Amino acid sequence: MQRYFIASKQFGDNRVTITDDDAHHLTRVMRAEIGDKCICTDGLDREALVKIVAIEKGIVEAEIIERLPMTAEPAVNVWIAQSLPKGDKLELVIQKGTEIGAVGFIPFVSERTVVQYDAKKEAKRVERWGKIAKEAAEQAHRNRIPAIDSVRSFKQLLSLVSEFDAAWICYEQEEGTTFRSLVRESLKNKAAKLLIIVGPEGGFTTGEVEAATAAGVKSVSLGRRILRTETAAMVGLTCILYESGEMGDSFE
Amino acid sequence: MQRYFIASKQFGDNRVTITDDDAHHLTRVMRAEIGDKCICTDGLDREALVKIVAIEKGIVEAEIIERLPMTAEPAVNVWIAQSLPKGDKLELVIQKGTEIGAVGFIPFVSERTVVQYDAKKEAKRVERWGKIAKEAAEQAHRNRIPAIDSVRSFKQLLSLVSEFDAAWICYEQEEGTTFRSLVRESLKNKAAKLLIIVGPEGGFTTGEVEAATAAGVKSVSLGRRILRTETAAMVGLTCILYESGEMGDSFE
Repeated sequence: MQRYFIASKQFGDNRVTITDDDAHHLTRVMRAEIGDKCICTDGLDREALVKIVAIEKGIVEAEIIERLPMTAEPAVNVWIAQSLPKGDKLELVIQKGTEIGAVGFIPFVSERTVVQYDAKKEAKRVERWGKIAKEAAEQAHRNRIPAIDSVRSFKQLLSLVSEFDAAWICYEQEEGTTFRSLVRESLKNKAAKLLIIVGPEGGFTTGEVEAATAAGVKSVSLGRRILRTETAAMVGLTCILYESGEMGDSFE
Repeated sequence: MQRYFIASKQFGDNRVTITDDDAHHLTRVMRAEIGDKCICTDGLDREALVKIVAIEKGIVEAEIIERLPMTAEPAVNVWIAQSLPKGDKLELVIQKGTEIGAVGFIPFVSERTVVQYDAKKEAKRVERWGKIAKEAAEQAHRNRIPAIDSVRSFKQLLSLVSEFDAAWICYEQEEGTTFRSLVRESLKNKAAKLLIIVGPEGGFTTGEVEAATAAGVKSVSLGRRILRTETAAMVGLTCILYESGEMGDSFE
């Protein structure tokens, strides 16, 4: 069934109001009519099955038929910090990361970042990334839209590391530390907020890896096959959620 | 270092010959000159570090400096059977699946496959898919190019299931069977050739899932978040290889 994230103020005790793009999608793309049902959530603590009772001037009114439990969010919160990749690869990372179960994304600029970072264009890009996250969250039946942080410098990113229970930087030259052992150890120690840091196409410099290590980040390899930058985050995220029992392990 | 898959006949005892697209890439894109090095592999049992000794008429001759061990292939062989998705999504599945470590792909047509299957265009598409697999394998430092099977019917696909130690069909309505338990059980039983079957955008019909089950395929869910068709294969593959210790577990 079609799902929409709506603002908290649109979520009443007995009714919800669906507006703007969502109302357009519901009435024009899905051709919904009075009496049809969909699911609405405020992405915080309310989710409900609703039935359309009025469609007027691009606004849909629907009554709440049944409150629904919010059970599609992973118990472990994984954030992805991705050095701005070329082209529309960050969109792929956000879309796939949202489907798989990331709770937030931190785009950042590092030494070998090739794309020109343009502060003027940032608002528009963050808006677009947010839209992709919203649509992917709706499609994946998530209860929450992942957060998209503003674009950070590598130094700013490292200053955020202390907010996480564990942080890992993907480094293809790492040969000592094993990713799986670290994931298992962290989950065993009840780590609930994790960060995966992925570099740009050209990878991180030795200096960056050293700075990250000094900030408490563990350098890890994701195996003997070299993953493209946009693939590394999806793979790391999948491994962590699989280990925590989120990829088809139980349905309690 | 740049890597190229070359035909066995181009791989001599002391020398290799690099031709066609690879020679063009090496000399024009990478601007390699005499004395420069690269890695060549025949994708079967030979891989070597080579040094360019001659470049003439688009053909590169290089002498073998050192034979290299072929250690980047996973011990567990995972095949992905993907119902033809819309647009260029199969290209994404092949590219990412190759990076992650799939050994082969079987495209197939099922009841809800939307794209028109055109036998006339098949040769061209299979050629394009093969090129994507080759480039992704080179980039990921794999020793072997994954196989791309010809497009099958769902019935033909099910007739291949007996060649695998275990086969799983992704079914979002499955609530009983847990994917992780099945993966663990199979690997414990030394399963070495595994198949993941993924449906088209609209999913499988109940009849198809029943037919698959009758053919020995286990129906599985990949978790509470609904994955897009092109995401399911990557995630399932990652989970299996992670469980088998291939995603950053050991470097022996």
